Amino acid sequence: VGLITTDLAERALANEPRAVARAMRLVDDRAPGSRELLRALWPHTGRAWILGVTGSPGVGKSTLCDQLIAAYRARGSRVAVVAVDPTSPYSGGAILGDRIRMSRHSTDDGVFIRSLATRGHLGGLSRSARDVVRVFDACGYGVVLVETVGVGQDELEITRTAHTNLVVVAPGMGDDVQALKAGILECADVFAVNKSDREGADAAARDLELMIALATESWRPIVAQCVATSAEGIPELVVALERHRAWAAGTDAGHARRMSRLAEEVRDALREALIEVATEELGERIEQAALEVDARLVDPYTAVDRLTREFRARSIR
Amino acid sequence: VGLITTDLAERALANEPRAVARAMRLVDDRAPGSRELLRALWPHTGRAWILGVTGSPGVGKSTLCDQLIAAYRARGSRVAVVAVDPTSPYSGGAILGDRIRMSRHSTDDGVFIRSLATRGHLGGLSRSARDVVRVFDACGYGVVLVETVGVGQDELEITRTAHTNLVVVAPGMGDDVQALKAGILECADVFAVNKSDREGADAAARDLELMIALATESWRPIVAQCVATSAEGIPELVVALERHRAWAAGTDAGHARRMSRLAEEVRDALREALIEVATEELGERIEQAALEVDARLVDPYTAVDRLTREFRARSIR
Repeated sequence: VGLITTDLAERALANEPRAVARAMRLVDDRAPGSRELLRALWPHTGRAWILGVTGSPGVGKSTLCDQLIAAYRARGSRVAVVAVDPTSPYSGGAILGDRIRMSRHSTDDGVFIRSLATRGHLGGLSRSARDVVRVFDACGYGVVLVETVGVGQDELEITRTAHTNLVVVAPGMGDDVQALKAGILECADVFAVNKSDREGADAAARDLELMIALATESWRPIVAQCVATSAEGIPELVVALERHRAWAAGTDAGHARRMSRLAEEVRDALREALIEVATEELGERIEQAALEVDARLVDPYTAVDRLTREFRARSIR
Repeated sequence: VGLITTDLAERALANEPRAVARAMRLVDDRAPGSRELLRALWPHTGRAWILGVTGSPGVGKSTLCDQLIAAYRARGSRVAVVAVDPTSPYSGGAILGDRIRMSRHSTDDGVFIRSLATRGHLGGLSRSARDVVRVFDACGYGVVLVETVGVGQDELEITRTAHTNLVVVAPGMGDDVQALKAGILECADVFAVNKSDREGADAAARDLELMIALATESWRPIVAQCVATSAEGIPELVVALERHRAWAAGTDAGHARRMSRLAEEVRDALREALIEVATEELGERIEQAALEVDARLVDPYTAVDRLTREFRARSIR
C-alpha cells in the first residue's frame, strides 16, 4: 500500500488527471491507503481558497457555480467543484441534472467537478467533503467550490470547512427561504439573490438586510443581486466574495474565526475517529447491548455508559 | 437534583401537563438532572407507537399530521407530535407557521405538540428527538408523530427511531421529489402522495411504485394517495400505516429490522457520549491541536490520532 500511495500522491501532485481522479475515489471510498495518501498530500495543502455555495434546490445554484467557475478561470485559477448530494445506498446518490448543467466547462482541463457519494453515515459526508477538498488543494486548484443543498446539520458542518460561504436564494421560494433563515444565516458571509430579474427580488434582499442587522459578528454579510443565467451582477458578486476573502485572511477577527472553525473541525474528526475505533473494537458488544435494551434488561443510558467505559478500558496501545 | 427529578418524573407520569412540559424542556436542554429523569421514566416506555412523518416543505405535512392526530384521537389514543425544525443559535429555531396550522387540536388535552430547538450540534437533533419521544412514551401518549423536514443525515438518523415511517410527497415538486428519491426512499414504509386532486398525482404515485419495485427489503412500501385538506384518502392511509405497524410488531423480519435500528441507535448514542466525555476531558487540548495544525506543525490526521490515544489513556475510572 505504502509504495502505491506514494506513487499515486506524486502523480496527483503532478496533476495527472487520472491520478487526481483515482485519489478522489480512494479518499471518498475511504479505501485502504486513503489516510496515507492524505498524509502525503498534506504538506502541499493550504493554498486553495475554499468557497462554500449553499442553497435550496431550484435557486439556480449550479448555474451560479458555472458563472463563478468562468470568472475564476478568467483570472487564471484552476477551479474544482465538490458537489455534495443527498445520498442513499439505494440510488448511489447521483442526481445528475446539476452536473450536466455545469458541463460547459467539461472540456476545460483547468476545471474538475467531483460529486460526493457517501454511505449515509452521520458525519461521513462532511469528512468526505473535507478530504476531497484537501486533495484538490494539494493538486493546485486555487479555488475550490463546495456546493451543498439545503440545511441539514451535516451541511452546516461542511460550511465550516469553507473560508467563505455564499448562500444563494431566489425570490418567491416561500417556505424555503423561511427555512433558510433558520439554518444557514449563521454561516453566510455573502448572500446572492439570484433571479433578480423576477418579482420579489428587492423584497428578498431587504429581508436579508433586515436579518443581517441583527447579526453581532464582526463580519457583516454582503447581499448581492444577480441573474446567473445572463451573468448580470456576477462581477459585483465576485467583488463581494473577494472582500470577504481579504477579511478572513487579513484581520484578527477573521483569524479568530478560522481558528474556532478549525477547532470544531478537529473535534468533528475526533468524534468520527472515536466511534470508528470503538465500533471496531467493541464489535458485537454493540448489538448485544441493543438486545439487552430491547429485552428491557438495561436502560439505554446505562448501556451506553458501560460501552464507553469498556472502550476506554481496552486502551492498551 | 435527585429528589426534584423523582418528583418531576412522578408528576409527569401522572400526566400533569406542566410537569410533562417541564420534563420536555429539561430533556431538550440537557439540563442537569435530565439523564436521571430519563432513567426514571425508562421503565414506563415501550408502549407508544412512533410514527415518523417526513417530507419537503410545501407538501402539506402539517395538515396531514393534523388529520392523523384527528384519526388517532378518534380511536381513543393520546397523541403527541415532536416537530423537528432546522435550527440556529440566531433564530432560536422557531418556524411557527406549521405549529399554528396544527392548532385546531390546541385545546385538546389529549394532544401535546412540542417543537425541538437544538443548538446545531451534529447528532444533537436526533438525540433530542429520541429523548423527547421517550418522555411522551412514558407519559402515556399512545401515538407519537415525529415530523421532520427534508433529507439531512440527521433526519435519516431520526427516522431510525420510528417504528413506521411515512414519507409525504406532493405532485409537481420537481427537483424536490428527485432529491427525496435519493435520501429518503430507504427509510419509507408508507408513501402518501398528498394533494392528489392536483395534476401529476398519478404520475408521482407511478414513479414511486417504480422505485419500490427495485427495493429488496422484505417490507414493500405502500403508496397511498390523499388530500389532507379535505381528509380524502385519510382512512386508507391509516389502514396502510396499521398494516406496517402489524408487520413491524408481528413478523421476524420486522423484529430483525427493529433490532438493527436499535443497534444503530446505541451506536449513535455511544458516538455522542464518547465525544462529549472526550471534549470535557481533553478541554483545551483540542484548541491546542487546532493551533498546531494551523501552524502546520502537524497534519490533522496525526493530531486526531494523538487526541484519540490521549483520551483513552486517561481512562482511570
